[in-house]
Amino acid sequence: MRIVVLAGGIGGARFLRGLKQAAPDADITVIGNTGDDIHLFGLKVCPDLDTVMYTLGGGINEEQGWGRADETFHLKEELAAYGVGPEWFGLGDRDFATHIVRTQMIAAGFPLSAVTQALCDRWKPGVHLVPMTDDRVETHVAVELDGERKAVHFQEYWVRLRASVPAEAVVPVGAEQAKPAPGVLEAIAEADVILFPPSNPVVSVGTILAVPGIREAIADAGVPVVGLSPIVGDAPVRGMADKVLAAVGVESTAAAVAEHYGSGLLDGWLVDTVDAESVTRVKAAGILCRAVPLMMTDLDATAQMAREALTLAEEVREA
Amino acid sequence: MRIVVLAGGIGGARFLRGLKQAAPDADITVIGNTGDDIHLFGLKVCPDLDTVMYTLGGGINEEQGWGRADETFHLKEELAAYGVGPEWFGLGDRDFATHIVRTQMIAAGFPLSAVTQALCDRWKPGVHLVPMTDDRVETHVAVELDGERKAVHFQEYWVRLRASVPAEAVVPVGAEQAKPAPGVLEAIAEADVILFPPSNPVVSVGTILAVPGIREAIADAGVPVVGLSPIVGDAPVRGMADKVLAAVGVESTAAAVAEHYGSGLLDGWLVDTVDAESVTRVKAAGILCRAVPLMMTDLDATAQMAREALTLAEEVREA
Repeated sequence: MRIVVLAGGIGGARFLRGLKQAAPDADITVIGNTGDDIHLFGLKVCPDLDTVMYTLGGGINEEQGWGRADETFHLKEELAAYGVGPEWFGLGDRDFATHIVRTQMIAAGFPLSAVTQALCDRWKPGVHLVPMTDDRVETHVAVELDGERKAVHFQEYWVRLRASVPAEAVVPVGAEQAKPAPGVLEAIAEADVILFPPSNPVVSVGTILAVPGIREAIADAGVPVVGLSPIVGDAPVRGMADKVLAAVGVESTAAAVAEHYGSGLLDGWLVDTVDAESVTRVKAAGILCRAVPLMMTDLDATAQMAREALTLAEEVREA
Repeated sequence: MRIVVLAGGIGGARFLRGLKQAAPDADITVIGNTGDDIHLFGLKVCPDLDTVMYTLGGGINEEQGWGRADETFHLKEELAAYGVGPEWFGLGDRDFATHIVRTQMIAAGFPLSAVTQALCDRWKPGVHLVPMTDDRVETHVAVELDGERKAVHFQEYWVRLRASVPAEAVVPVGAEQAKPAPGVLEAIAEADVILFPPSNPVVSVGTILAVPGIREAIADAGVPVVGLSPIVGDAPVRGMADKVLAAVGVESTAAAVAEHYGSGLLDGWLVDTVDAESVTRVKAAGILCRAVPLMMTDLDATAQMAREALTLAEEVREA
């Protein structure tokens, strides 16, 4: 079975770990969001790709969900001592190595997709991890700060400001000119099922879908497309998805997110049992829907979610 | 009193610490060797400048004489795990920050001299540390390896090969086209005394003198030029100076090094007491000479060496 997953960071990575347990023999291609990539200290940092790679490769800091296990922060302390920031982005000493290798390879002329493959040669995540594009896309968030309307990098909005001010708009700058990375459209065309994990529908899955060609390829693939709600009981399971949903005029409910994707793209949708009453509304939008436990409390619970998603995909296929 | 010192790495840095104690009110300009600079992992590394900066700024690893105190090597371990080398060059996590800041500033268009000043804003070494040039000079060593004659970077010869094969030639590549960095010729012209610390006469002091204009400025400054022998009892005090002295046809003795500099450049020369018999030979070459203890066993012994050098400079002036 060939599965394609559109993944953001922590939520996507944890779901993938469950999916690998649920479908150990599946051939899984992960199309990773790169809209949250950021250049820091002259280095190219790809937080979502790295979170997937470290999580599946056994190098993740389990408690915080991002960054490396057994990490130290001496380099960052020294940069601060030189007065060089930003200090709000937590790059550890071990993590820096990934960004140095990536930056060197890019400087040597390799596209990000080839670099990602080279990094994965070490981590062996057990999936094909492909960035959504080799082109530069950078998600910016329009906010009002100190009475002034300005656009900040997504990481600045998310990490420094902790989404404490309303997002007035979310713009994946460069997406319109971006091309899907080699392998992306091929994987979608050959997929048996396509999954949207409980990742952020705006800044993670939404950014991937903003790369011209990807949304169309998914809609035209002719295979079940099934998603899992990142909203449980009207609140994001983790992160601050509600803040960026508001920016695109979508209410923070499991049903509204399904409608936001729409039946032209989405065939099946899992909501949490606490949102069981929204099943009717999702079905009315032309999307198969079922209520199951959606909290990724541990690996077994996450694997069960993945099984439910694959079962729903079967139902879509048979419908 | 204005003192100019031509410095390499460890020997130069330790001597400078003694000089600062011996002449606390002196205005000291250090012209640093950059011929051993190396680009690693996309970063510009300046070992000699950093050794001076860390030693005088209180950040040096005292035991090894280079690199940072309280250092970890997690980033380097991770680079090795990615298969990215070289592994033979010991960059620590804290040390990396210096190279990242330097590389970023150079990429932003600042010359190395301005970058060095910015780094020293943090370390406050108590001297004006100026690279010999803002241009790229890279010392290469011609060796025979595996039956083949090839040129290797000085760091590869010194650190990886540990000078285990004969140096057939030492070439400061790019020196002929290099210009002295801003402040170098001015400091020499305004100096009251110029000192050659017990640094390597070929790859440290020799490389600085290879930048067109510097040797001439020193010879024409009309002030005492006094050096301290890095060779004690026919062997280098530390390092492997004998290996590179052989490459330029100079025997490894205190007297031969003085003759190598020559009376056109050098006015006074200190040899160690064990080399007292060479005083006559050095004087015969037209260079004032005295035998004093030259082992930098501790700060007081080093300060005493600096005082002897300044005293000899006075004698030169009065001669």
